[in-house]
Amino acid sequence: MKPIRYGMIGGGQGAFIGSVHRTAAAIAGNWTLTAGALSSAEKKARDSGRELGLADDRNYGGWAEMLASEAALPEDDRIEAVAIVTPNHMHAAPAIAAMEAGFDVIIEKPLADSSANAQAIADAAERTGRRIAITHTYTGYPLVKQARQLVRSGKFGSVRRVMVKYTQDWLSRAEDLVDNKQAAWRVDPERSGAAGAFGDIGTHAANLVEFITGERIEEIAAELTMLPGRKIDDDGAALFRLSGGGKGTLTASQVLVGDINDLVIDVYCDEAGLHWRQEEPNTMRIGYRDRPTEIWHAGANREYLDRGILAIQRTPAGHPEGYLEAFANIYRAFGQSLRGVTAEGPERGFASIEETLRGMAFLDAVLESSRNNATWIRI
Amino acid sequence: MKPIRYGMIGGGQGAFIGSVHRTAAAIAGNWTLTAGALSSAEKKARDSGRELGLADDRNYGGWAEMLASEAALPEDDRIEAVAIVTPNHMHAAPAIAAMEAGFDVIIEKPLADSSANAQAIADAAERTGRRIAITHTYTGYPLVKQARQLVRSGKFGSVRRVMVKYTQDWLSRAEDLVDNKQAAWRVDPERSGAAGAFGDIGTHAANLVEFITGERIEEIAAELTMLPGRKIDDDGAALFRLSGGGKGTLTASQVLVGDINDLVIDVYCDEAGLHWRQEEPNTMRIGYRDRPTEIWHAGANREYLDRGILAIQRTPAGHPEGYLEAFANIYRAFGQSLRGVTAEGPERGFASIEETLRGMAFLDAVLESSRNNATWIRI
Amino acid sequence: MKPIRYGMIGGGQGAFIGSVHRTAAAIAGNWTLTAGALSSAEKKARDSGRELGLADDRNYGGWAEMLASEAALPEDDRIEAVAIVTPNHMHAAPAIAAMEAGFDVIIEKPLADSSANAQAIADAAERTGRRIAITHTYTGYPLVKQARQLVRSGKFGSVRRVMVKYTQDWLSRAEDLVDNKQAAWRVDPERSGAAGAFGDIGTHAANLVEFITGERIEEIAAELTMLPGRKIDDDGAALFRLSGGGKGTLTASQVLVGDINDLVIDVYCDEAGLHWRQEEPNTMRIGYRDRPTEIWHAGANREYLDRGILAIQRTPAGHPEGYLEAFANIYRAFGQSLRGVTAEGPERGFASIEETLRGMAFLDAVLESSRNNATWIRI
Amino acid sequence: MKPIRYGMIGGGQGAFIGSVHRTAAAIAGNWTLTAGALSSAEKKARDSGRELGLADDRNYGGWAEMLASEAALPEDDRIEAVAIVTPNHMHAAPAIAAMEAGFDVIIEKPLADSSANAQAIADAAERTGRRIAITHTYTGYPLVKQARQLVRSGKFGSVRRVMVKYTQDWLSRAEDLVDNKQAAWRVDPERSGAAGAFGDIGTHAANLVEFITGERIEEIAAELTMLPGRKIDDDGAALFRLSGGGKGTLTASQVLVGDINDLVIDVYCDEAGLHWRQEEPNTMRIGYRDRPTEIWHAGANREYLDRGILAIQRTPAGHPEGYLEAFANIYRAFGQSLRGVTAEGPERGFASIEETLRGMAFLDAVLESSRNNATWIRI
Repeated sequence: MKPIRYGMIGGGQGAFIGSVHRTAAAIAGNWTLTAGALSSAEKKARDSGRELGLADDRNYGGWAEMLASEAALPEDDRIEAVAIVTPNHMHAAPAIAAMEAGFDVIIEKPLADSSANAQAIADAAERTGRRIAITHTYTGYPLVKQARQLVRSGKFGSVRRVMVKYTQDWLSRAEDLVDNKQAAWRVDPERSGAAGAFGDIGTHAANLVEFITGERIEEIAAELTMLPGRKIDDDGAALFRLSGGGKGTLTASQVLVGDINDLVIDVYCDEAGLHWRQEEPNTMRIGYRDRPTEIWHAGANREYLDRGILAIQRTPAGHPEGYLEAFANIYRAFGQSLRGVTAEGPERGFASIEETLRGMAFLDAVLESSRNNATWIRI
Repeated sequence: MKPIRYGMIGGGQGAFIGSVHRTAAAIAGNWTLTAGALSSAEKKARDSGRELGLADDRNYGGWAEMLASEAALPEDDRIEAVAIVTPNHMHAAPAIAAMEAGFDVIIEKPLADSSANAQAIADAAERTGRRIAITHTYTGYPLVKQARQLVRSGKFGSVRRVMVKYTQDWLSRAEDLVDNKQAAWRVDPERSGAAGAFGDIGTHAANLVEFITGERIEEIAAELTMLPGRKIDDDGAALFRLSGGGKGTLTASQVLVGDINDLVIDVYCDEAGLHWRQEEPNTMRIGYRDRPTEIWHAGANREYLDRGILAIQRTPAGHPEGYLEAFANIYRAFGQSLRGVTAEGPERGFASIEETLRGMAFLDAVLESSRNNATWIRI
Repeated sequence: MKPIRYGMIGGGQGAFIGSVHRTAAAIAGNWTLTAGALSSAEKKARDSGRELGLADDRNYGGWAEMLASEAALPEDDRIEAVAIVTPNHMHAAPAIAAMEAGFDVIIEKPLADSSANAQAIADAAERTGRRIAITHTYTGYPLVKQARQLVRSGKFGSVRRVMVKYTQDWLSRAEDLVDNKQAAWRVDPERSGAAGAFGDIGTHAANLVEFITGERIEEIAAELTMLPGRKIDDDGAALFRLSGGGKGTLTASQVLVGDINDLVIDVYCDEAGLHWRQEEPNTMRIGYRDRPTEIWHAGANREYLDRGILAIQRTPAGHPEGYLEAFANIYRAFGQSLRGVTAEGPERGFASIEETLRGMAFLDAVLESSRNNATWIRI
Repeated sequence: MKPIRYGMIGGGQGAFIGSVHRTAAAIAGNWTLTAGALSSAEKKARDSGRELGLADDRNYGGWAEMLASEAALPEDDRIEAVAIVTPNHMHAAPAIAAMEAGFDVIIEKPLADSSANAQAIADAAERTGRRIAITHTYTGYPLVKQARQLVRSGKFGSVRRVMVKYTQDWLSRAEDLVDNKQAAWRVDPERSGAAGAFGDIGTHAANLVEFITGERIEEIAAELTMLPGRKIDDDGAALFRLSGGGKGTLTASQVLVGDINDLVIDVYCDEAGLHWRQEEPNTMRIGYRDRPTEIWHAGANREYLDRGILAIQRTPAGHPEGYLEAFANIYRAFGQSLRGVTAEGPERGFASIEETLRGMAFLDAVLESSRNNATWIRI
């Protein structure tokens, strides 16, 4: 399969997530970075591109210039897709413009800073027929996909209860907002959207619940909080109700000390409980009532894993894959989809626009519930 | 110190918790089983007593008989206290009668099947001047006490968030109510009280929160559920607010498959997160933001533990103590208190009546909230 | 079953292991402490006995006095057995005298400070027909017994390799020999025997290998070491060969910093690997090649455990039992054996004299091998 | 930094390690695959190259052809280095030829199938002045490097004892040699060298010991074994002595069921014990005597890690890096070295020829010891 030529918008010097996208694309093996508009500041954009070895004539000072110039190139030379890794409030404009210029789009989550902007992106996709993938990273882990297949197979019965938490500590102190590029926009409603921790990581947690269970979070009662002096939530928790009748709790926080990047999910079905923790992603625990607890191991040669799960792994069991490989699985699947290659992997290799719009609706409901003393809101 | 002579009410053949109380008292070393009315069925009571080696004239067919007969014995021969290990709805009558007959009382939690009955016991204690201990077992673990001392010392700042769960799976199937002595009364509102899983184990979870933080759960929004065909909750979750301003979540369930007896608590303060799990009680994890995570080990010779914690342990680190030793710590502390011995241990060795009344109020609030679609209820 | 009246030799104030034996006997439920000669120093002996509530006329100033006085009492009043918890070099004399006086004996391991003394005890047992149990504590854990039954059943094939370690750190510093009652005799060849760490804990490790595999360690190549200035080993390792053809490694040390009481065993058979660690004794891991790893949980209600294993546990799964309960299992089994009660438990509830003599032979072989540059020695 | 153009020898379709090298180079970011002779079978070589997108004129049918053709290209077009990922017995010839043709070499370990061939490669490096890196993968993990810096700093005192194991189960059955490309050459002394499991993975274990301690394994007493019908070792264990006076044990096996890729090392110094396990590479445990055990976390933002360790990580803590990233660290460091870039990382980013020759000497000693009933052999 011929690699997909892509241009990146955002992700210049010092940006964490841009580097993650580029490495993920390199590991995926079916993408090649061909152009870039790596910053909204022209000089920084070009400096960043040079560092990455972009050809000078594909190293643009801004995304509008990139889209225009690339669209004018011959079809077998110009980029085919763009990766958008800007702050949340700068997703919609380049995404819509890129689609209108004829490019497919892969975009860092959340899709946008508001439901309105997210819908505008969705509308543009509908209108232009271009394809979009959103990088809900954690669904790229093999054992998350395996959990999904086990739960959805029905062999364990219905989902009774889900507990999910996504907690970090990097904003635990007042001074964390000073001189921190990562933090600054995330806690500023103008740039991040009205939701803080819930927008940044709570959506990952909610997405993981729906991904694994195959159900929808239908109603939620949430209470968000924040440290004194902050404008948007940095911590909160919720009760929720699943479409299949099960119940759940969700906690998201960026101020819980000692929790590094602690995404943990417990899914209890009638006959088994599945447990996965992102920081040790290569094992999954399954508890039963009448027989020993099982530890499932990731790895390209664990024959008890589903065939599709085996196909997306790069190393045999015991050679741990991590975050970048999970991210690469999303790029690879989207790349295969763009080329029309029937993926060898499990059926949903990347998040669709619908899935992502659900994330926006989730956020709206959480915010409304929290404003109303944790009353139940239907999503 | 001369051992305390005690009589046991309930706890005959086949009863789990009676045996636990007797073994705990034996490990404690300052109690001696002298009399018993071990069942409400006379023959079973006497058979059970004989098996335990009770003298025939102290092996009673019913608790009323025991209280009357013992009270008539000379002071240095008669029992000094009674241990009540009957089902919840049979706590109040013998407890009140025992105090009125001049005996101190140690009683399996929850104190009673209703707040009214609990208050009646409290009133009797007030009226008679007798002393009561309630066996909130899990506060007997050394590292739980250590966590309490660390949090209450203030060295880690305020409590931000608490997550607690107490989940089991032994009622996960419809048929679990058939032919199961342990289960039958627990899921029958007539005998267990209006609360099921929340009464049985949710109160342990709530008590642990208050014990470690030294704060009160002031408001709660809870949703209880149950399997089809059941009359009282076997599963539920809640959001709560602490008196110091922190927030929390609490899940209690007896139908979550693969969770054996999974009491887990996470207490996040401004500068550290403390984590303890009952099934591996001899380690506690403390996470920090700027330095490595710590694993604290229980053991009579771990010098970094507080002096009072060291004093209540029987074995050096690495020789695991368990549930029975935690239980024994409660008996020992109550025994020391009855003898007027200044305990070497930490300040609260057993649960007081006030603490337990709080548990009843917690249950009332949970039930009311759940009946009102998880609206907030002040406790 | 009527409890067995026993007298204790050694175990006075400040002695760790004496208290462990007494608590274990109390938990076992079929023993009652009736007499004692709790120290070789008469005043300390009597002070210790008073503290434990021994009747004055059964609280002896020395073991010879105790044996003589008790033997003179009526049969249904005198003690039936003695528990010997003195330092190693003081095992043989009271053990032999006790058997000659008509008492059965339970004795802290190792049986004696030398093979000669151990053999003398064995000869006395043979001559007098009295019964002896040696408290190889770690074989009292339910999951160790379960491992033994699994391995010996043959369902996993032959034993290929065993790795065992028993490591501690309490003698890791030169100053640890000053003012430490526990340490002083253990590192003094006059009192402990010619072996140090290998005698104290290496024998536990070797015993565990033979207990679980049902095979004999036939040959060993060992190298012992010690910190500068010490007279006997505080650290060492060995290769060994099992009677069934498997191989193994054994490490024992009391100077490995951070290892608290770290007894760990890995037994690899043709079709499964079993893993157990004493500090978390209520789980056992079993690895397979073609299916998920299993975690087995201890508990009186885990139906996949063997019936005999279920019978010796006091609490349901999730209520952790520990070191004292394992110890109590040995007392209970020996007590049942003395009463002729057919044990409900697995077939070997306590260590026999033969098993213990093997431990002495193991030590002799280790010492000889180490003196000869780790050459192979047949045991 | 301009990426290094490299050609790969071996690593065609179906080869595991070739794909690992290419992905590692892509993650490293300073290498670009420019040419290849990907199989010793011409057609397979070319098919494999096409699949990887090699230009037709750089996709060679054999390594001799590649070296000759590339050497004839202009300096700024031709490859600068070769990566050799053939079976062990096919390392020496292309490595020597490549260096003689002017190319630097990165080579999968072990360096060669015999000490003689390894020495021939070393001599060629000396003669030609070309540079060589050997991919001792596991030294690429950040926490392994951190352990090395901690131990070598001397802050924990001297090394007392090391326990290391590297165990797998993929050759645990007789039939594993049938139709298994990975297995076939590894168990054939003609292609793998005289050592089997010890050559394949035992050398990794020994290298890790020397890397972390900064000492040499000076003497070893080893016993190798193998399943019936096999020609070279698939299992074995050894005692060893370190140059600093410490002792150790090493086990390597490919027939221990349930162990997937279980490389585990415990390094005990006078004042701390360090513990690392490859399958969970992002944490390291450090045990102390007088304070709580510590868990160190990998991550580009854990400020307690050394500066050089922080510099080689790609993601913040909690976003797990794995085997491919560790491998990439070796490529990156070698690439920086070839470009004369002062590495930001710790001092030894890749294994030198001397380090690797030590591995060959280790193997020779192990084999000789095993042939002589585990007698001590000086390395």
